[in-house]
Amino acid sequence: MEILKVAAESEPKKVAGALIETLKEEEYAELQAIGAGAVNQGVKAVAIAKGKLKSEGIDITLIPAFMDLEIEGEDRTAIKLIVECN
Amino acid sequence: MEILKVAAESEPKKVAGALIETLKEEEYAELQAIGAGAVNQGVKAVAIAKGKLKSEGIDITLIPAFMDLEIEGEDRTAIKLIVECN
Repeated sequence: MEILKVAAESEPKKVAGALIETLKEEEYAELQAIGAGAVNQGVKAVAIAKGKLKSEGIDITLIPAFMDLEIEGEDRTAIKLIVECN
Repeated sequence: MEILKVAAESEPKKVAGALIETLKEEEYAELQAIGAGAVNQGVKAVAIAKGKLKSEGIDITLIPAFMDLEIEGEDRTAIKLIVECN
């Protein structure tokens, strides 16, 4: 399964596009965000995707979870945004 | 209905506590966050609440939405995190 990585510089509309594509294929997607800026863009992307998919009759929900990562030898906590079609 | 306002300085554990209380009473809660730092703390609070409520057999989902606000005469976009018991 592909994990969509979101950064503080990611454009929510573009992330939403990738998210919609993944959800249509797999009915499930995961966004991974490290840091407040990235989490914010990820949440915006889900809100955008939700609005677009609603007009196609697809309802999605978001489940946030913590995720421990090791980046360059340091422990970091990322936020995993699990998105599912209902 | 009470809206739980989250700031960048909010402590996720405390917000999670308030969220759990509201969800147990109303099966529904709204967090309002303005800015990346606030959204991040709000999402963390939902992840913490989800873990705690799961151990009590309560499953929650998050629906993010945009929310237009006027603060001191300026238009601002806030993120509304709608949390529901399934």
